Amino acid sequence: AFREEFLDMHPYDQGQFFEELDEDLRFALYEMLSPEEMANIFEQVEVPEEDYQDLLSEMHPMFAADMLAEMSTDDAVDVLNELDKEQVASYLTIMDEEAADEIKELLHYEEYTAGSIMTTEFIAIKANQTVRSAMQILRREAPGAETIYYTFVVDEQKHLVGVISLRDLIVADEETMISDVMSERVVAVSVAEDQEEVARIMRDYNFLALPVVDFQQHLLGIITVDDVIDVMDEEASDDYSKLAGISDVDDTAGNSPFGAAKKRLPWLIILLFLGMMTASLIGRFEDTLNQVAILAIFIPLIGGMAGNTGTQALAVAVRGIATGEIQEEGKLKLLVREALTGVITGGSCGIAVTLVVYVWQGDFILGALVGISVFATLIVATLTGAFIPLFMHRLKIDPAVASGPFITTINDLISILIYFGLATTFMSYLK
Amino acid sequence: AFREEFLDMHPYDQGQFFEELDEDLRFALYEMLSPEEMANIFEQVEVPEEDYQDLLSEMHPMFAADMLAEMSTDDAVDVLNELDKEQVASYLTIMDEEAADEIKELLHYEEYTAGSIMTTEFIAIKANQTVRSAMQILRREAPGAETIYYTFVVDEQKHLVGVISLRDLIVADEETMISDVMSERVVAVSVAEDQEEVARIMRDYNFLALPVVDFQQHLLGIITVDDVIDVMDEEASDDYSKLAGISDVDDTAGNSPFGAAKKRLPWLIILLFLGMMTASLIGRFEDTLNQVAILAIFIPLIGGMAGNTGTQALAVAVRGIATGEIQEEGKLKLLVREALTGVITGGSCGIAVTLVVYVWQGDFILGALVGISVFATLIVATLTGAFIPLFMHRLKIDPAVASGPFITTINDLISILIYFGLATTFMSYLK
Ligand SMILES: [Mg+2]
Ligand SMILES: [Mg+2]
Ligand SMILES: [Mg+2]
Ligand SMILES: [Mg+2]
Ligand SMILES: [Mg+2]
Ligand SMILES: [Mg+2]
Ligand SMILES: [Mg+2]
Ligand SMILES: [Mg+2]
Ligand SMILES: [Mg+2]
Ligand SMILES: [Mg+2]
Ligand SMILES: [Mg+2]
Ligand SMILES: [Mg+2]
Ligand SMILES: [Mg+2]
Repeated sequence: AFREEFLDMHPYDQGQFFEELDEDLRFALYEMLSPEEMANIFEQVEVPEEDYQDLLSEMHPMFAADMLAEMSTDDAVDVLNELDKEQVASYLTIMDEEAADEIKELLHYEEYTAGSIMTTEFIAIKANQTVRSAMQILRREAPGAETIYYTFVVDEQKHLVGVISLRDLIVADEETMISDVMSERVVAVSVAEDQEEVARIMRDYNFLALPVVDFQQHLLGIITVDDVIDVMDEEASDDYSKLAGISDVDDTAGNSPFGAAKKRLPWLIILLFLGMMTASLIGRFEDTLNQVAILAIFIPLIGGMAGNTGTQALAVAVRGIATGEIQEEGKLKLLVREALTGVITGGSCGIAVTLVVYVWQGDFILGALVGISVFATLIVATLTGAFIPLFMHRLKIDPAVASGPFITTINDLISILIYFGLATTFMSYLK
Repeated sequence: AFREEFLDMHPYDQGQFFEELDEDLRFALYEMLSPEEMANIFEQVEVPEEDYQDLLSEMHPMFAADMLAEMSTDDAVDVLNELDKEQVASYLTIMDEEAADEIKELLHYEEYTAGSIMTTEFIAIKANQTVRSAMQILRREAPGAETIYYTFVVDEQKHLVGVISLRDLIVADEETMISDVMSERVVAVSVAEDQEEVARIMRDYNFLALPVVDFQQHLLGIITVDDVIDVMDEEASDDYSKLAGISDVDDTAGNSPFGAAKKRLPWLIILLFLGMMTASLIGRFEDTLNQVAILAIFIPLIGGMAGNTGTQALAVAVRGIATGEIQEEGKLKLLVREALTGVITGGSCGIAVTLVVYVWQGDFILGALVGISVFATLIVATLTGAFIPLFMHRLKIDPAVASGPFITTINDLISILIYFGLATTFMSYLK
């Protein structure tokens, strides 16, 4: 029958199927499935934020509340975070009390912290029991647990004291005590830890789950690797968006042109005003321009190269901070390295430009002027590109907000100042 | 003792410790540890590519060969890929034959494919055995297996026919047949599949491991989630690098200024010549410029806005392709959406520019000229930014190579053409 066929599919495929249904068919599905079965699907559903409220309103309130209670706590919290406060309160009131309490605990953790991605459905055991009794607990709790592959060991006060993998459990002698086989060197994260740091730890240690503790080392929850993968996707997309100067790059799916424009216009308007500043700066050199109009033709070249080197240096610094390769102590070293890199790239490009312009325009002074401008500009632009994210990191601002277009436009300004400054000074030597 | 303390650490921490040692201490460690113990460390070691050869040469050849044989096959292959062909051959000759055969099989898969990230240390069982006997196999093979949390079921010809998780195994009755508890809907990838697609499947289905098959559905290996996390990191860094116009953004760690410059110069040189083309294009409009020098001051503004909108559209298209949100069918829809987005952003910015320039310069015609240029430029730049990656994807080229600086410079050219084209046409109306 359809019901069996459907439930035999992987939950992700069920979720994809559900997302395609129209209202009538969704109603039929709510009729057909239990709240628990619907919970498995709803954990996989990804729709625009504002649609969760509509989907839940389609269900009988009691059905919706039961479904939320059956969902993994972390996923239930993600859904509830998209609803109005009153809606949340009403579901929590009619929900099974135990589930409501677990959800309430998670609801108040701040976005982007370990607390916001953890779940409370972990398996905890005591150290003074045998492997056999631990296995019994595992079998009993498997259906509701987020993972059974790591079991965490706590003391009477719920302090995290150890961890044992199912791999170690099934090869251990059944009569051994947990205290003898568990690992006491547990890597745990604090509930307020940045989710990016959580992802770094998972990546480095190859864990499948990571325990989350409070300041007294009480075990509060676990973070599973599947949710860390989503965090990595989200953070990568975020950094990429900022480099491109767009508030959220993942705006394709069914977004209208207005929706898309709304995400891009803020940056464009800011850049427009920075561009006006550049224009007014060039305006100050109007005399120079009137006398040597040929100067104008190299404006895009110099500004473009400044923007590009700046973006390169910015990208290296932002990624280095994100991957944890650049630490506080390494910052000065990086700046020195970038300055020298600027000297090398600026020198190479400066010489190339001088020669090309000389051959092309037959004017060595003009060539040297453009070449020296490129040289100086590239050094300053490289340093600016590296310095701004490092400085923001020091101020505890996400360095990725120093986005590409911002650096590009700042460096445009700098390049104009250098180029026309030099040109005005040495104008008398130009043909 | 130190040996016990050291081995008690997590392998990742052992690897970090190892990376900090000087030569003498490394020699002491090779003396102290067995090839198997050293293998666990070496799996975690990340040094510049050229250093692997040196590290292996420090070891007794037999010790090195044994260590490579004990490593996870995928990690051993990653190390061997950094050595000279003769070196590889010599290690494979003295190595345990079975291990050498497994490594040889993996060595010839192409980079960035499923084959290049899979390992052959999986557990496969038959469908016509009991859960009890499967558990015995698991316990026996656990020490050498990459994961025991998924067991794959194969028929006599090694075709993949099912999968069962350890979670399902431990709650199943011991006398049940595997065929009755296994899932027959196994999601598998072909050995030639792109690693990015592997990562998408892992992300969507929340698997911990994914089986890899050949064209006849023979099970060849498995890909584990920890390696997929590394792939995601690598791909994110790659896309980010290309958007910034730098061949590899992760060039911070101990890289010299020359190393850094080498990774940035290729792009800068290309851009320099594109910049020369822009200069020569403006040169064609020298008459216009000589008569209305004020035109020059808006070059960076128009070029900058064109570059920025182009990059925004590019980023949306590249990410959409990478995350799988943009499929072949959706391409035309995206282009239409982007064209309309360009009309909206171009219209808004165009009006703003017209007004600002009018008020500032007191010349409505000049304002309108710059405003209309911004309007037309933004539409074309948005379309170009979206079209180029889509077109590359169609040609099966990685769309991310259409990097930010490339789009920026192309759009610089286009903007100049539009701006000076309009200015030359309507020059007689300008003050
Ligand atoms: Mg569930
Ligand atoms: Mg959450
Ligand atoms: Mg963050
Ligand atoms: Mg890892
Ligand atoms: Mg979860
Ligand atoms: Mg999740
Ligand atoms: Mg971030
Ligand atoms: Mg590999
Ligand atoms: Mg690829
Ligand atoms: Mg997922
Ligand atoms: Mg591996
Ligand atoms: Mg690995
Ligand atoms: Mg890629």
